[in-house]
Amino acid sequence: MAGDARLRCQALAGRVMTAGEAVAFIAPGSHVGMSGFTGSGHPKAVPAALVSRVNDAAARGERFAVSVWTGSSTAPELDGALAAVDGIDLRMPYQSDPVTRAKINAGQLDYVDVHLSHVAQMASEGLFGHLDVALVEVAGITADGALVPSSSVGNNSAWIDLADRVILEVNSWQPAELEGMHDIYYGTGLPPHRTPIGILAPPDRIGGPYLRCPPEKIVAVVPTHEPDYGTPFKPPDGDAQLIAGHVVDFLAHEVRRGRLPAALLPLQSGVGNITNAVLAGLGGGAFPPLTAYTEVVQDGMLALLRSGAMTMASATGFSLSEDGLADLHDGIAGYRRQIILRQQEISNHPEVIRRL
Amino acid sequence: MAGDARLRCQALAGRVMTAGEAVAFIAPGSHVGMSGFTGSGHPKAVPAALVSRVNDAAARGERFAVSVWTGSSTAPELDGALAAVDGIDLRMPYQSDPVTRAKINAGQLDYVDVHLSHVAQMASEGLFGHLDVALVEVAGITADGALVPSSSVGNNSAWIDLADRVILEVNSWQPAELEGMHDIYYGTGLPPHRTPIGILAPPDRIGGPYLRCPPEKIVAVVPTHEPDYGTPFKPPDGDAQLIAGHVVDFLAHEVRRGRLPAALLPLQSGVGNITNAVLAGLGGGAFPPLTAYTEVVQDGMLALLRSGAMTMASATGFSLSEDGLADLHDGIAGYRRQIILRQQEISNHPEVIRRL
Repeated sequence: MAGDARLRCQALAGRVMTAGEAVAFIAPGSHVGMSGFTGSGHPKAVPAALVSRVNDAAARGERFAVSVWTGSSTAPELDGALAAVDGIDLRMPYQSDPVTRAKINAGQLDYVDVHLSHVAQMASEGLFGHLDVALVEVAGITADGALVPSSSVGNNSAWIDLADRVILEVNSWQPAELEGMHDIYYGTGLPPHRTPIGILAPPDRIGGPYLRCPPEKIVAVVPTHEPDYGTPFKPPDGDAQLIAGHVVDFLAHEVRRGRLPAALLPLQSGVGNITNAVLAGLGGGAFPPLTAYTEVVQDGMLALLRSGAMTMASATGFSLSEDGLADLHDGIAGYRRQIILRQQEISNHPEVIRRL
Repeated sequence: MAGDARLRCQALAGRVMTAGEAVAFIAPGSHVGMSGFTGSGHPKAVPAALVSRVNDAAARGERFAVSVWTGSSTAPELDGALAAVDGIDLRMPYQSDPVTRAKINAGQLDYVDVHLSHVAQMASEGLFGHLDVALVEVAGITADGALVPSSSVGNNSAWIDLADRVILEVNSWQPAELEGMHDIYYGTGLPPHRTPIGILAPPDRIGGPYLRCPPEKIVAVVPTHEPDYGTPFKPPDGDAQLIAGHVVDFLAHEVRRGRLPAALLPLQSGVGNITNAVLAGLGGGAFPPLTAYTEVVQDGMLALLRSGAMTMASATGFSLSEDGLADLHDGIAGYRRQIILRQQEISNHPEVIRRL
């Protein structure tokens, strides 16, 4: 294992196993905190093995279901596949899978919709009960056992801190260049012991590049080589471009009236064809180079970063099309200096957002 | 004037005048930023003089209306009286007067409902246009011209900073002991120049006790001696007490489960008979002495402070019944050490609220 560039920690060599073996650490009724934020950084192998266990149990006439806590939405092979076999008791804090949605609306699984910045705090306070297992994709493990986060951070630090047992998927499909991009902050604390979060501008770093986990909690290390989920892509149409034109005009007007700085304030943007059209418009030369403090980096923002119309973006993960995924991997040497990935508690934190 | 305990600033002696004289500084179409938060600290004399001017103009067949920006709701003699004579063009950021509400719903005056912590920022950014006049009640003016805030702070610092002209009502009905209770913070700033707000616990002070105003902007000083508005009082009924019992049980349960500290976290409370019943329940001995970081201090919270069940409360103003007003004045020597009044931008600030 020490010879593998992704698994550099000798102490964990004995815990490398298949997904089918690792899933034995998840029991019926477990609360499982999984990585994953809008299709990036979710576990790719163990959820499928869990579906098999659910099916095997059903064949014996038994019910096997778990609570699934994540960062945000994941991918059909996680949410959709588990919900389809009735393998989910409770889902939180957010999901967008149509199969899962139908089960929720039919009352067949419980769903708690939580503000994405509140999840780690509420889970740490015990509001959702005890966390049994963390199932987290990482991009690598260093020689001294530090975890290189994957293409999303989400609630991974909280899941690892709270869980009794940690299952890691080490995904070599993720670029090795992710190492060093993240800013993982362990100073949040719970009330009444909180202090200000020292982010005064999107590029500020207040933590370190690695997730921490006591090695004795790591019960399984599962090597994978699977892509993130490419969100289906719809190119901007005429309406989207008209909307984008109005938004860009409005922002330029606010700059002219002195109500916004020339380079605007840090952008927060959503996902979709209208957003991509707006971002393309913002990159059209009307403004000095921009910054973003946002939830996810999507295709349009990658284009701004690549062209230099945006100097840097802070987010908790990616939400990319197939083309966007290819672009990210192709340009990772540059993007890694322009993008900071943080915990979703921080990317979506009202203190920082109000300040910026 | 120097001999008057409330008007200790010799330099302003020449600007003392009646409300009828002072109202001449308000022109038709003016944007007027007024003090006042839920019946406390609103101007008591100039609004009535403004109603007279509106009526006089109407008798001549002319329209006289102004935009009224406040802290929050005020009192019938301000909101209701001005709306009744169609003296308001635009009202923001909040109001609860039935006459004004009817005019708004009939489309006869414009209304902008704004998050109370956003108002000062948005006004400072110019989103509501230029502020012509600040009309602010204070409890006194020191020898060197510092303003002793009244029974609410609201947006007064922003109105004074932004307005061309400042009209002060110096209300000697307000207790002289208010001096020193306030914490007025001038470090908020606008993006991208913001830094953390250094409140780590409700008793923390980050500013000073006075409002600042360049003396040359003060065009009128109007002495008054008028009470704050006593919000009609409805004593807790059986239902309110049942609800209060459930809330207290819930909080005690959370403490037993280790999800809340024994003295809870700082309370934020609303206003009304249910709130008063809940606060009475919290004072029943189930918890160590509490604190509050809230918007307004109401009757039930005064009772907690008086009994020692609450050590201190941070707010932006009072919302009291007639009995509560009498209680506040009677016990001001003690309450002044237990209550901190801040700008509503700070009392309602998401950064501080999320932290605490």
